[in-house]
Amino acid sequence: MQKFFITLDEFENRVLTKDTSFQLINVLRSKVDDQFLVGVIDKTYLVQISKIENKLVAFEVIEEKTGNSELPFFVSLFQGYPKGDKLENIIKYGTQLGVHEFHPTLMKRSVFKLDSNKKDNKLERFNKIAKEAAEQSFRNVCPVVVDIKQLSKIDFSEYNVKILCYEESAKNDETSAFKSIVKSINANDKIAVVVGPEGGIAPEEVEYLTNKGFISVGLGPRILRTETVVFYVLSTLSYEWELKWWIKKLDFKH
Amino acid sequence: MQKFFITLDEFENRVLTKDTSFQLINVLRSKVDDQFLVGVIDKTYLVQISKIENKLVAFEVIEEKTGNSELPFFVSLFQGYPKGDKLENIIKYGTQLGVHEFHPTLMKRSVFKLDSNKKDNKLERFNKIAKEAAEQSFRNVCPVVVDIKQLSKIDFSEYNVKILCYEESAKNDETSAFKSIVKSINANDKIAVVVGPEGGIAPEEVEYLTNKGFISVGLGPRILRTETVVFYVLSTLSYEWELKWWIKKLDFKH
Repeated sequence: MQKFFITLDEFENRVLTKDTSFQLINVLRSKVDDQFLVGVIDKTYLVQISKIENKLVAFEVIEEKTGNSELPFFVSLFQGYPKGDKLENIIKYGTQLGVHEFHPTLMKRSVFKLDSNKKDNKLERFNKIAKEAAEQSFRNVCPVVVDIKQLSKIDFSEYNVKILCYEESAKNDETSAFKSIVKSINANDKIAVVVGPEGGIAPEEVEYLTNKGFISVGLGPRILRTETVVFYVLSTLSYEWELKWWIKKLDFKH
Repeated sequence: MQKFFITLDEFENRVLTKDTSFQLINVLRSKVDDQFLVGVIDKTYLVQISKIENKLVAFEVIEEKTGNSELPFFVSLFQGYPKGDKLENIIKYGTQLGVHEFHPTLMKRSVFKLDSNKKDNKLERFNKIAKEAAEQSFRNVCPVVVDIKQLSKIDFSEYNVKILCYEESAKNDETSAFKSIVKSINANDKIAVVVGPEGGIAPEEVEYLTNKGFISVGLGPRILRTETVVFYVLSTLSYEWELKWWIKKLDFKH
């Protein structure tokens, strides 16, 4: 069943915007009485089309859906701004894997130069990608791409778990900090994850972040590209905290 | 330092092929006495350029490098053939994350139609992507993209751990099979991972694989796209088996 994130205004007026209405009427060929899901802030409702008029869809609420698809803690990704369209993939896959906030971050080795005239367009496009990925993966909340900022302008004070994914740690066979941190996370912790751009994080940036309480972690013996780091961190957060296991050894082998 | 996977012939002759020589001479601007790494089957050597003649690079071996960047077990990915160029990304990121063999698999819901005239070209291109990703991520062995095959033509008998990533398991809140299997893996196990194409795995395919000893697993509460499933499985295999942790609770919080 299709899910759409909508605004509180749309929800209260029980009428969808032109864009979402177009999607339902023209792309999905929906008719009156068809049902779909809407996400409003952090709630999800099953709704039904009551009327289609002037290319706008009006709906009635059938019931609130319970069920949670969110990680039990809050994750912000501070991604060193990478080349090309990699950031779009990071936002798409990161959303599927549970990131709550994306902060594209300008670091010493980011090749990207911010053109402030185009910043709003970029942010709008990134947020659209996040919204679509959140709808497809049935997230309860829609992640936000907050702002494109210099590393030195970011306030990390609200975070109580600070992870710095650092290639040099991996090269020096640092293999226990990440797992130790992940296993120490508590419900409702606020986690900041910093990942460098292609050239990595500069030593002075590592020092800056260490002074702010970040712990450098290695992610295993293979060198991961910047976009792969995000997949690794988020997949393992889910594995550790969303999956269970049977203590008894499995006898499934053949 | 740059790494290149080369053939046993190249290694024994101490001369690189035209392509790799071109890469060194024209792209990396290497000169006589410059050093680089070569991977030969599962060994890695530090070598030094001894001569550049007729656009070919000759080298001497300085020393064998020890150090292992391979997962402690063997992983084959049977990926339902997806749309567009997704398979290229799956091979690129899967290689960084440790896959040993890729088997692009034609399933009921694969939209892709195999044109047997183009199959060899496709496989060549896929293997080139795997080789480049393996060089960049400093793998010890270069993964192989084996063949494009129908699901029913595949022999799974050599595998003793068989994981079927099944969206419907995730939707039914199945959250313990995957972690239980991962924790039961032993060194040198041979693991087959099956992932469906975009439309998912058809029920008759699930039955077929279950009869072959596959266990259906869910990967958490968010619906993952086909390419994201691979990242999740491989990242968590690394996390569970390549990272260590301090039993003592960490006191890193602020």
